[in-house]
Amino acid sequence: MATLRIPQQIPSPTQDSETLRKAFQGWGTDEKAVIQVLGHRNATQRKFITDTYQQLYHQTLIDSLRSELSGDFGKAVILWTYNPAERDARLVNTALKSNKKGVNEVQVIVEISCASSPHHLLAVRQSYCSLFQCSPEEDIIANAPPALQKILVGLVSSFRFDGAVVDLDVANDEADKLQEAISLKQLDQDMVVWILSTRNMFQLKATFESYHQKYGNLIDEDIKHCGNDILESLVKIVIRCIVSPEKHFAEVIRASIDGWGTDEDSLTRVIISRAEIDLMKVRGAYFEMNQTSLDNAVRDDTSGDYRTFLMALLGE
Amino acid sequence: MATLRIPQQIPSPTQDSETLRKAFQGWGTDEKAVIQVLGHRNATQRKFITDTYQQLYHQTLIDSLRSELSGDFGKAVILWTYNPAERDARLVNTALKSNKKGVNEVQVIVEISCASSPHHLLAVRQSYCSLFQCSPEEDIIANAPPALQKILVGLVSSFRFDGAVVDLDVANDEADKLQEAISLKQLDQDMVVWILSTRNMFQLKATFESYHQKYGNLIDEDIKHCGNDILESLVKIVIRCIVSPEKHFAEVIRASIDGWGTDEDSLTRVIISRAEIDLMKVRGAYFEMNQTSLDNAVRDDTSGDYRTFLMALLGE
Repeated sequence: MATLRIPQQIPSPTQDSETLRKAFQGWGTDEKAVIQVLGHRNATQRKFITDTYQQLYHQTLIDSLRSELSGDFGKAVILWTYNPAERDARLVNTALKSNKKGVNEVQVIVEISCASSPHHLLAVRQSYCSLFQCSPEEDIIANAPPALQKILVGLVSSFRFDGAVVDLDVANDEADKLQEAISLKQLDQDMVVWILSTRNMFQLKATFESYHQKYGNLIDEDIKHCGNDILESLVKIVIRCIVSPEKHFAEVIRASIDGWGTDEDSLTRVIISRAEIDLMKVRGAYFEMNQTSLDNAVRDDTSGDYRTFLMALLGE
Repeated sequence: MATLRIPQQIPSPTQDSETLRKAFQGWGTDEKAVIQVLGHRNATQRKFITDTYQQLYHQTLIDSLRSELSGDFGKAVILWTYNPAERDARLVNTALKSNKKGVNEVQVIVEISCASSPHHLLAVRQSYCSLFQCSPEEDIIANAPPALQKILVGLVSSFRFDGAVVDLDVANDEADKLQEAISLKQLDQDMVVWILSTRNMFQLKATFESYHQKYGNLIDEDIKHCGNDILESLVKIVIRCIVSPEKHFAEVIRASIDGWGTDEDSLTRVIISRAEIDLMKVRGAYFEMNQTSLDNAVRDDTSGDYRTFLMALLGE
C-alpha cells in the first residue's frame, strides 16, 4: 500500500510543467510549488510531465531541477523525478562506485532484486546498460566486495517466476540443502546462490518455513559464525527482503536516523522507492518495532524543504 | 542477412487468414498454400496473421496447424508460426525435458544466449516463465547435466551490454584469467562463467584475440584435456557462437544431415531460427567448410512438404 497522495483533480501535464517553470523563474526557487506538483504525482504522471516539460522548454526537467535545487532536498526530488528503472539503475551504480564497500552500500542491489517485481529488475538492468555502457553484473564483479560478488551477480541476474506456485517437496529438499551449507559454513555454495536467486518468492517462503519446522530456528538466526561477517549480513538481508520487505525497510529507516546525524541517502532511498509500493506497510512495521511513529521520527530528524518533501511522500 | 523472401505485394492479414482457412477445409490440406503464405512472411507479419486468424475463426492458428499438419513438416510450420520468443522458450523446455542429456540437446540454450540479441534472450525468459510457471534457470538446475548447470545458468541469465565498447586492458587481463583456468583444468571457475556470460560480444572477441596473441593458440584449441568432455564441448560452442555464429550453425546443419538418417529437429531449429537473421551467412560458411552448397545438402536429405518448406525459408 502506497502512501503517496494524488489529488482527485490533477492538472494536465502542460499545466504542471508551467507551474514548475514558473517556480524556477526569477530570483530563488519556489520549492513549495515544486513539492506541490511532483510530490503528488505517480510515476506515470511524472513521466508525462517530464516529456511535456522537455517539449515545451527544450530542456530536461532533471537539468532544471539540478540547476535550481540543492542539498538533500535537490537529490531527493531529482531521484523521484527519474523513472523508477533509471532511478534504481543510478542507485546501483552509485553504490558500486562508492568508496565505502560495505553491506550498507550494496544492499540496494538486494532490495531491487528481492523486493521489486521481476519485470522492474529487468527494466533496471536495461536502463543500467543504456546509461553506463556495461551491465550491473560487470560492475559488481569489478567493484563489490569479493565475498559478495557471487551472490550479488546471481541476484541481479534473476528473473523469477512471478506467481504463487509452490512445490513442498522442493521446499523440504532445499531447506536441507540450505541447512547443510550453513552447517558447513559455506554460504557461497552455488546451490545457495541458485536457491536464493532463481526460486519464486512463494516457493522461498515455503522453504524458509520448512527450515523452521525441521531445524527449530528461523533460518536467519542460524546464519552466524559462517566465517564471513559481510556475507552473513548480506544473506540475512536477502532473506528479510523476501520474507517481509516492510521490516527490512523499517530497519533501514531506523538505522538511517539512529544516533548522531542522519544517513540522508538511505532515508531518501527508502521513502522514494517505496512511496508508491508499500510505505504504508513499512510505517506499520516501524511502529511495531519501535513503538513510535515513523512520521514523527522522520519529522524530528529532518528539516526545511527536505522534510516537507519526504512528509509529502509519506502522505501528510 | 536473412534468406526469407517476402513478396513485394503482401496480401492483408485477413486475406492471408482466409487463404489458410481455405487450405484447411475439406478433405486433406493444401500444404502448398500453407507454405505459400507462412513461408514468405516475417515475424511481424506472422503475428498479424495469427491475431487476425483468431479473431476471424475463434480458434488459434497454431491449433488449426496442429490438427491439419503432421510429421516434421507440421513441427516445422508450427515452430515457425510461434512468435520467436515463445518458439525459443519451447525449444529450451523441450531440450531440458528430453531423455537425452547431452551437449547436442542443450546447445540451443547457448545459441539463444550467445547468438541472439540481449533483448531477445530477455523475451525468451519472460515467455518461458509464462508458459511453464518456472524460470529456465530452475529447469536447468533440475534437469541439465550437473557439469553444465553452472555455465548454462550464467548464460541464460545474462543481459550483455549491446554495443561495441572494448577495454583492451580488461581483454588482456581476462585472457590471462581464462588461460589460468584452462591450465588448471577448471573451466567451471566462477570467473570463467562470469567472463563468458557478462561481457559484451566485442569485448569477448578482443579477449579471445588477446589470448591468441599471448599464448599462440586459438582459445578453443586449448580447451581440451580439462577433465570434463561435456563441459569442454559446451564451452567450445559458447566461444564459436560468440566468434562466428554462422560457422556454428553450419556445423549443426552438417552434423544433422551427416551419415545415416537425418536429425530433423536440429535441421529445423537452425533454419527456422536463423532464416530471418543470418542464414545467408550460414550458407556461405557451409560452402567454405564443405565445398558443397547448403541448399543442395538440405534438398538431398529431406523430402515432400518438409523439403519444400525448408527450401522456401532458404529463399528458393
